[in-house]
Amino acid sequence: MNSADIKLLKEGYLLAALSQQEFEEVLTHAGVFTLMQNECLFDQGDPATHFFFVLSGTVKLCRIAPSGEEKVMDLVRPGHYFAEAVMFMGGRYPVYARVLEPTRLVELDNKHFLGLLRSNADLCMRLMSTMSQRIHGLVNEIDNLTLQSGAQRVIGYLLQQLPEGTAPPSVRLTVPKHVIASRLGIQPETLSRVLAKLRGKHLIDVHDDQIVFNDVDALRCLS
Amino acid sequence: MNSADIKLLKEGYLLAALSQQEFEEVLTHAGVFTLMQNECLFDQGDPATHFFFVLSGTVKLCRIAPSGEEKVMDLVRPGHYFAEAVMFMGGRYPVYARVLEPTRLVELDNKHFLGLLRSNADLCMRLMSTMSQRIHGLVNEIDNLTLQSGAQRVIGYLLQQLPEGTAPPSVRLTVPKHVIASRLGIQPETLSRVLAKLRGKHLIDVHDDQIVFNDVDALRCLS
Repeated sequence: MNSADIKLLKEGYLLAALSQQEFEEVLTHAGVFTLMQNECLFDQGDPATHFFFVLSGTVKLCRIAPSGEEKVMDLVRPGHYFAEAVMFMGGRYPVYARVLEPTRLVELDNKHFLGLLRSNADLCMRLMSTMSQRIHGLVNEIDNLTLQSGAQRVIGYLLQQLPEGTAPPSVRLTVPKHVIASRLGIQPETLSRVLAKLRGKHLIDVHDDQIVFNDVDALRCLS
Repeated sequence: MNSADIKLLKEGYLLAALSQQEFEEVLTHAGVFTLMQNECLFDQGDPATHFFFVLSGTVKLCRIAPSGEEKVMDLVRPGHYFAEAVMFMGGRYPVYARVLEPTRLVELDNKHFLGLLRSNADLCMRLMSTMSQRIHGLVNEIDNLTLQSGAQRVIGYLLQQLPEGTAPPSVRLTVPKHVIASRLGIQPETLSRVLAKLRGKHLIDVHDDQIVFNDVDALRCLS
């Protein structure tokens, strides 16, 4: 493993919680290898002995249904782990793994990693803290992605309704919110969340059906 | 707590890993209450004694920088926890929490929940398994969302390049792909993945730098 590999591995959420000493200890039980295009890493139903980290390339995780149909469950790219959820639970891989292109992987030993966790409750807590922070970060990212376009439409609509010369600039919503949402092609909950977000940023104030604009220029930039 | 509250709470990732008995045990140390608009739940720097789950309403988490500037870190909505990452680490709330509207909350006792985790390594493993599954699900969702908008930009760009009257309709990419990606504000890998996806759906064929459109109308609908 070169220093770039180690840096990438250290940034992955699962090992980020480890101290330098713990990290080095884990590395002594880790292997690096490359699979060629279409090579299989493990089969559905194999005993789960390792979890993995992708250094480069792409791993496809598929499940074969009892009907024989194949379902792609995940495409794992560089910087991401896989098969670590099944490590925590023990048992067998619920999917099979094949690489889509030449792919470099780190293989980490389940038994060793679990032993480390079981002997160190504080490490478990640190890991759970990192994981919950990561969940919050991802939920926020999704929120931003889905709200972005929704917010642009809402702001555009509100600015359109703005009568000239009111001070402070404000809009009275004369149609029910679900009608506005439907007109903008968004869910009513998205409308509420966009308004909450704009309020949270102090860009607007909401008093019943009256929306006061605290910063029209900033809103124009966002629309 | 009514049965709808309990159902929502049970679906949140943190308690989903608990057995029915463990869940009921946690409930004996939980409280439900409502805060009115703008009420403060805790202050930045307060000792972190509880973590929370939003039943309805919105909680704003803000951090005050040494400069005095306020930064909104998170808007927490129904079905989501907050302050659980700091629970795992102990210490003080790094943010303050205020509600944007009348908000119903469940308050859970850190000391009790941590005691439960520290006395039960298997529960820790179950919880880490749920959390890593949740992380995978969220990463996938983000992938789909970014690919979606990426695809729209790529298709829009390709359609713009389409010369009139070629049969079959096709585009020759005269600039390198990384330049196109940068012009579209997406990663080169996203461009490759979008093209692969469109090829997979038989909407386009790619021959070296030549892209043949198999169904211009379908592509227009997607852009």
